[in-house]
Amino acid sequence: MEQDFEALAKLYKNALLNDVLPFWETHSVDWEQGGYFTCLDRKGNVYDTDKFIWLQNRQVWTFSTLYQQLEPREDWLKIAANGANFLAQHGRDAEGNWYFSLDRSGNPLVQPYNIFSDCFAAMAFSKYALASGEEWPKEVALQAYNNVLRRKDNPKGHYNKIYPGTRPIRSLAVPMILANLTLEMEWLLPSETLEQVLSATVEEVMTDFLDCRSMLMYENVAPDGSRFDSFEGRLINPGHGIEAMWFIMDIANRRGDSKAVNQAIDVVLSILDFAWDAKYGGLYYFMDAKGHPTQQLEWDQKLWWVHLESLVALSMGYCLTGRAACWDWYTKLHEYAWSHFADPEYGEWFGYLDRRGEVLLNLKGGKWKGCFHLPRSLYLCWQQFEALNASS
Amino acid sequence: MEQDFEALAKLYKNALLNDVLPFWETHSVDWEQGGYFTCLDRKGNVYDTDKFIWLQNRQVWTFSTLYQQLEPREDWLKIAANGANFLAQHGRDAEGNWYFSLDRSGNPLVQPYNIFSDCFAAMAFSKYALASGEEWPKEVALQAYNNVLRRKDNPKGHYNKIYPGTRPIRSLAVPMILANLTLEMEWLLPSETLEQVLSATVEEVMTDFLDCRSMLMYENVAPDGSRFDSFEGRLINPGHGIEAMWFIMDIANRRGDSKAVNQAIDVVLSILDFAWDAKYGGLYYFMDAKGHPTQQLEWDQKLWWVHLESLVALSMGYCLTGRAACWDWYTKLHEYAWSHFADPEYGEWFGYLDRRGEVLLNLKGGKWKGCFHLPRSLYLCWQQFEALNASS
Repeated sequence: MEQDFEALAKLYKNALLNDVLPFWETHSVDWEQGGYFTCLDRKGNVYDTDKFIWLQNRQVWTFSTLYQQLEPREDWLKIAANGANFLAQHGRDAEGNWYFSLDRSGNPLVQPYNIFSDCFAAMAFSKYALASGEEWPKEVALQAYNNVLRRKDNPKGHYNKIYPGTRPIRSLAVPMILANLTLEMEWLLPSETLEQVLSATVEEVMTDFLDCRSMLMYENVAPDGSRFDSFEGRLINPGHGIEAMWFIMDIANRRGDSKAVNQAIDVVLSILDFAWDAKYGGLYYFMDAKGHPTQQLEWDQKLWWVHLESLVALSMGYCLTGRAACWDWYTKLHEYAWSHFADPEYGEWFGYLDRRGEVLLNLKGGKWKGCFHLPRSLYLCWQQFEALNASS
Repeated sequence: MEQDFEALAKLYKNALLNDVLPFWETHSVDWEQGGYFTCLDRKGNVYDTDKFIWLQNRQVWTFSTLYQQLEPREDWLKIAANGANFLAQHGRDAEGNWYFSLDRSGNPLVQPYNIFSDCFAAMAFSKYALASGEEWPKEVALQAYNNVLRRKDNPKGHYNKIYPGTRPIRSLAVPMILANLTLEMEWLLPSETLEQVLSATVEEVMTDFLDCRSMLMYENVAPDGSRFDSFEGRLINPGHGIEAMWFIMDIANRRGDSKAVNQAIDVVLSILDFAWDAKYGGLYYFMDAKGHPTQQLEWDQKLWWVHLESLVALSMGYCLTGRAACWDWYTKLHEYAWSHFADPEYGEWFGYLDRRGEVLLNLKGGKWKGCFHLPRSLYLCWQQFEALNASS
């Protein structure tokens, strides 16, 4: 592929501003009862009105972030406010823990069993405080952040089904989300907290979860960082590992640690080698480190966010280091992603393809796909290519 | 397909006795530490040693049932005992609730959050008591049965994540398993209990879970039997509905209720019409009653048990009524199942195919596939075709 960074920057910018954001602006906002519809079919029609807290908070985050970082469009702030007000009113139980889902009008459906609801609330309200300039969202953000800190060693509380002691597990998701969250909350936290969390995360992820022989990221390890031989212990989630690596690149770059930047790129390249489907193209969703059958029946499917996080990691890796392998892989992923996931006819991207790359679920949004990975990735890739263009 | 019932009876008998049971006899028994390995690759090699309580109990049930109903082979009783002794020693917590999984040596891994572990324990130990002639397994069976009765209105206890009141749900699984279980425990229960449970189940399933317009079985309904419009409320699980219908046929037949037998067949035929993949053949795993995207990414996969339960329902329906539609569908399902799932090279059947019928997971057993659906179905189909042969 030609290295026309200007054209690439334009492609991402155009997709973000003229395709993806309009899709959500037009179809997803529940102006009547507050919050957002995320279950949207290919054309944007609402097929289910339940409100899933991850996606509600992520959409507040997206519109607040773009308002604050890109352009202060009043429409975007209004959309963010429509979610933030609904969530502040209905999203939490009496102890301030965030529910997992609500019905359309805000009645709780699923209990606060999931710490990531609180993570995404902290991210959303931190950015919404910045965007709106109001005080109250800061309080909501800090309360959610403290929930995460309090619950991080037992994220599921009494909903946790693991029997204590037999085979204790630490999951990659926890340090990753904590690092991401701390970066998002930076302006609200004392600077020592920031430095301490970031340094602990890089250390933990790159020592315990990274397997130095295979250079793969494991999803679950024992408390001492060793591997264990079970479905969970053998699990590789390529998209998650790659997303983790661009967080690490970003953190390492801030700290001027080019060795860590390069190590994170090495891991991205190893994961891509391991997870690329040589027969049909695209990256697998779940894999077993030893090549055994996974317990996830959806293991061979091609998911939008896995490919988008890879585009971010590769464009960022190339922007930071100029390594040729980043460009080669970027090209491969770019061709696959833009030709399989984008939907020029109705806007937004498809989310779920089968192994062969055919559409598996004809939706643009659902219980887990909302207004988040695609706009975030489009924005970040656009930034990388602008930087590359400026420096070339 | 030719109606050669003798040949069909022989086919099923031969597969059961000379293919499937030898596979499990050879590869799955953990003679060293007790219980069974169920994670077996295509050739029967063990790829994971964790012990999942559903599958452990189901294998005790299978070998006990065949010993008791088919032939008192000492080997089969030994295999059943190897599981029953292991489970009696390690399977339950201090309150007598059944764990979900154990490690190889019997240490608990996952807590007793799942009432079906107790169901399968009751079935297993009831049959093992009959097979072994011993007293103690009766106690184990009755204790598990009482757990089920005690927990059936809140099967997940404090692990239940549903917020009370907003949208209460009743699931088809609970009455179905209770009916099946009660039939299995018949010899241990007072006859009024039996009659009462069976009659309540037929009533509940055919009134509340059956949608009279579409003639489809819904997985979840409101407490008053009405439908609700959410992912759970729209969910159709074709294999589960069809399995439920042969339970109902079996119960209705015992009670001489030919109207209910025919109604159950009508439902089977409707589900097959709805769930048959006209493009690639086979039955879908999950569907949305309104045709919306499902939340299950594995919705379009073709699973062994779905097709096996259909073979049982259709051969039973044909045997009981001689309805031509049963035979037509039986033929279609027979051709699909025997040509896609059976593995003449290494024995046993594949479990998980993609939509096109290609093998998705190259395993013969795993976390959810063990020695149960296939041998049970082979045995039941064999019996139907023997009866048809005798009467023709």
